[in-house]
Amino acid sequence: MTVQIGVIGAGMIGQDHIRRLTEVITGAAVTAVTDIDRARATEVASGKPVFCEKPLATTAEDGLRVMEAERAHGRRLVQVGFMRRFDAGYRQMKDVLTSGAVGTPLMVHCAHRNPTVPDSYVSAMTAQDTAVHEIDVLRWLLDDEISSVQVITPRATGKRFSHLKDPQIMLFETANGVRIDLEVFVNCQYGYDIQCETVGEDGLVRLPDPAAVGIRAAGLHGTAVPRDWKSRFGDAFDTEFREWIASIAAGAEPTGPSSWDGYAATVITDAAVQSLESGGRIITVDIKPRPAFYGAAS
Amino acid sequence: MTVQIGVIGAGMIGQDHIRRLTEVITGAAVTAVTDIDRARATEVASGKPVFCEKPLATTAEDGLRVMEAERAHGRRLVQVGFMRRFDAGYRQMKDVLTSGAVGTPLMVHCAHRNPTVPDSYVSAMTAQDTAVHEIDVLRWLLDDEISSVQVITPRATGKRFSHLKDPQIMLFETANGVRIDLEVFVNCQYGYDIQCETVGEDGLVRLPDPAAVGIRAAGLHGTAVPRDWKSRFGDAFDTEFREWIASIAAGAEPTGPSSWDGYAATVITDAAVQSLESGGRIITVDIKPRPAFYGAAS
Amino acid sequence: MTVQIGVIGAGMIGQDHIRRLTEVITGAAVTAVTDIDRARATEVASGKPVFCEKPLATTAEDGLRVMEAERAHGRRLVQVGFMRRFDAGYRQMKDVLTSGAVGTPLMVHCAHRNPTVPDSYVSAMTAQDTAVHEIDVLRWLLDDEISSVQVITPRATGKRFSHLKDPQIMLFETANGVRIDLEVFVNCQYGYDIQCETVGEDGLVRLPDPAAVGIRAAGLHGTAVPRDWKSRFGDAFDTEFREWIASIAAGAEPTGPSSWDGYAATVITDAAVQSLESGGRIITVDIKPRPAFYGAAS
Amino acid sequence: MTVQIGVIGAGMIGQDHIRRLTEVITGAAVTAVTDIDRARATEVASGKPVFCEKPLATTAEDGLRVMEAERAHGRRLVQVGFMRRFDAGYRQMKDVLTSGAVGTPLMVHCAHRNPTVPDSYVSAMTAQDTAVHEIDVLRWLLDDEISSVQVITPRATGKRFSHLKDPQIMLFETANGVRIDLEVFVNCQYGYDIQCETVGEDGLVRLPDPAAVGIRAAGLHGTAVPRDWKSRFGDAFDTEFREWIASIAAGAEPTGPSSWDGYAATVITDAAVQSLESGGRIITVDIKPRPAFYGAAS
Repeated sequence: MTVQIGVIGAGMIGQDHIRRLTEVITGAAVTAVTDIDRARATEVASGKPVFCEKPLATTAEDGLRVMEAERAHGRRLVQVGFMRRFDAGYRQMKDVLTSGAVGTPLMVHCAHRNPTVPDSYVSAMTAQDTAVHEIDVLRWLLDDEISSVQVITPRATGKRFSHLKDPQIMLFETANGVRIDLEVFVNCQYGYDIQCETVGEDGLVRLPDPAAVGIRAAGLHGTAVPRDWKSRFGDAFDTEFREWIASIAAGAEPTGPSSWDGYAATVITDAAVQSLESGGRIITVDIKPRPAFYGAAS
Repeated sequence: MTVQIGVIGAGMIGQDHIRRLTEVITGAAVTAVTDIDRARATEVASGKPVFCEKPLATTAEDGLRVMEAERAHGRRLVQVGFMRRFDAGYRQMKDVLTSGAVGTPLMVHCAHRNPTVPDSYVSAMTAQDTAVHEIDVLRWLLDDEISSVQVITPRATGKRFSHLKDPQIMLFETANGVRIDLEVFVNCQYGYDIQCETVGEDGLVRLPDPAAVGIRAAGLHGTAVPRDWKSRFGDAFDTEFREWIASIAAGAEPTGPSSWDGYAATVITDAAVQSLESGGRIITVDIKPRPAFYGAAS
Repeated sequence: MTVQIGVIGAGMIGQDHIRRLTEVITGAAVTAVTDIDRARATEVASGKPVFCEKPLATTAEDGLRVMEAERAHGRRLVQVGFMRRFDAGYRQMKDVLTSGAVGTPLMVHCAHRNPTVPDSYVSAMTAQDTAVHEIDVLRWLLDDEISSVQVITPRATGKRFSHLKDPQIMLFETANGVRIDLEVFVNCQYGYDIQCETVGEDGLVRLPDPAAVGIRAAGLHGTAVPRDWKSRFGDAFDTEFREWIASIAAGAEPTGPSSWDGYAATVITDAAVQSLESGGRIITVDIKPRPAFYGAAS
Repeated sequence: MTVQIGVIGAGMIGQDHIRRLTEVITGAAVTAVTDIDRARATEVASGKPVFCEKPLATTAEDGLRVMEAERAHGRRLVQVGFMRRFDAGYRQMKDVLTSGAVGTPLMVHCAHRNPTVPDSYVSAMTAQDTAVHEIDVLRWLLDDEISSVQVITPRATGKRFSHLKDPQIMLFETANGVRIDLEVFVNCQYGYDIQCETVGEDGLVRLPDPAAVGIRAAGLHGTAVPRDWKSRFGDAFDTEFREWIASIAAGAEPTGPSSWDGYAATVITDAAVQSLESGGRIITVDIKPRPAFYGAAS
């Protein structure tokens, strides 16, 4: 059975999704593409499964409306495009945490580094477009909710457009008291580099760097750092679609990030932007109670 | 367009191929499966593209007959299932060698380790079933032909069925004078472990271990070693089929290992078995001249 | 020439110093040992070179008095026992930072983990006894002064004596705007583990783990984590004394951490304790202006 | 007590030894230096402890005469300068092998790479001056004797003086059937690089690379490779002398490599040179029975 897919929005990521659904993923066919971005809640109301790139909505209120439409329908229809949950390294890390091998998590140290960003990238996007990936994947890894956020700004790099605060360090606390520090540095120059280390009561688990040949030449042992997110997370994007298509083909609800997760990410990134704009105040995250409809945190 | 595929032989690897073509790879459909293994040359004669698991043939003579049938047809029809050429690490290594970053290759150090083998695995299979993967991928990596082979036998492990010579060390020389040492150890107990390091005039390039989370606990920093070839080379199998299906869909000749490569592998493994059985003599590899039909070595 | 050394204080570290000066370091002899800890300022006033284990003084005021006595004498007499400046890894990191290879420093991520501490270890000691090593080495690495500190407390590990806040995260800002995050976890169970990564405008430099054999067995590639600070920093302690003895033998001023550095460390650790006890307030560090006597920061 | 030391031979390594004994090692003083290299057996006959740089003797016969003189004296006087036994990595490897963690050894894979050698370095020196270090350390690591050797010559690097066969691959077999392959490449250009991996029935243990900071910049994660043997084995030289001086000060026999080990190394390197000059024949090593005087192999 081939799953028929309509694509709304054919920008950079949309085009890459179309390529992937057509050339890489089995069991799917793109049958319609439109670049008119009508309200997503309307789509959800139509009763079809929706894969929605992040952000689910640009405001928390819009996110709540998507959830209302979905609950009116009676079953989960929406999966949000947080692909890191499908990355093999993060999945191994979750397995290790679940196994208890490193004990109860206490702290997470993260870095999200990107070589450069264009002039159109503004300071709020550090949370909204970049850190949002860690926000989602950490909620999932820890099976916990983020309760406060503080954004502090180191000395800015000279290698940025001058309006941008870069790098930024984000400090999150979770409901269970786990502390997360996240460096976001979007003009780090040297490559695309994702680091994550979870420290538990008995040990720690660290995300691997991607496998790459080691070269010894001219006095140095070197391995290449990925250039961009496409090469770093290409396999995760494949797996994300493969599992989503399989869930639809099986008539099952999607198991990936839900509209609840998309809503939570929006609330948390809003709080991060508020902290940044307030000069680094600690902002309490004001998330609604989790509806039973979305199950327990996974 | 969906490529219709008939599968001949539904043993362990055949069943895994069917699963992969059905569930993982886009653009292909398995439309017939038979477990009767009729002569492959007959199949080739039918004029259809053939993906043939290694070995291409159990004797060099049979391999030559396949090539004759193929040339009679006038274009390449056969691709042999040496999946390592599709592994990301080996491909990076080939790119590095081609780039000249480590200079002209002089030596290659390899290891092929497998946790255990059953009683049915006999000493000749170390070359025929196991080392054959290195034999193919090294011919391709070095763009060179293997000219002699010597098999020496270290002290045998106690953890094997007693009829088996395990481990074995194979020493190859190429037409260009490159020396290759390959440890093959099929009862190494600890995991499935593939190592390859090419040393050139200016430096070396080393195959990476698969990416895996690092865990610190109980006084140790540890990463998991793969358990078996399925987990180690799963992505390579995917890529192998994806590119083969794409070449068929495009009406092009396959670009993977040819029947020539399958024939060469058979001749070289035959020589290795002969060296083993002779107590370690250096055996000259007697490969026919490469027909122009199969192009220059790639 | 053999340098004659009197040792005041023969506790755990004092005894290890005596052993090292006697058995490991050439050109030195311990000629007197007393366990009566008279005022250090008095010793300095006597006009002899002094190697003083950290802390230089238990209060900032006492530290200032040591400096006054030293300046009255007219030349540097005191070296404080911050041994990390003599560790090969930190020295390499300083060389890299000085070379400009990673650009202007913007952030430093650190971790200081210790397997367990006894009941006598109280929460203030996390700054005073443990983090003080990072405080000194980071001032030296960055050639910069720490201007504020904030201590936040993650969920506490269950594997501690209940009076202790463990782990703690310390956030420092420097005069130049560099942001430092330091995890201090003194009951981490798994080993003694020191991590430090400095991120600059063009790249980063990371402290190596100590060299240790890699072992592959039972499905795992593992390397041992050091058990304690003695094995991790044994070579640094050797180098510290060797260079100090050499400076005395040469009649030169010591080049290691000065009484100024000891004073600064006390002021900063006091601020950290104040932040901890205040529930995580940001505390401005109130260091006096650096006297010209102690030169520019190194 | 200070051990008085006379140095015979003040060439490159001799001068470095004098520096080390004077500036680094405690408890020793160099009290006489002569550059006249009289017969070493004479020195041994005088009844004083002798630290003899490798080679113990330039012929096996001279080595036997040293042993006769030593036995006539009635106790061990000679320690030969094979410093690798004092390297922390090799010592860890020996501990792992002794512990049984990787099972009975079956194979060892080694590489000894040096950036360049001068015109005066001739092909026989690959065994005599370079591989001799592996020959000694492997006998000690495995607690086993080398029984045959074969030297094969890959395609030569263009980056050498034309009279030199470089690289060379040496294949050793031990009395217990362990197989060792050793790449010796003395013009590898990129640095000084020592690799050693012992494969046992249950796993393997690998020598670590020296600890060095990791740098991420310009798309690469890099660590420096040592430039030369002085930086790679500096600590091993220190430890070698420290333990030797301590054994003398204690009036004990030296525990390092004995004149028996020096003799064995000479016989084995002679066999390697013979194999090289014969075009790669397998040469049986003709070592005399080990005298009880030198104890069991350690």
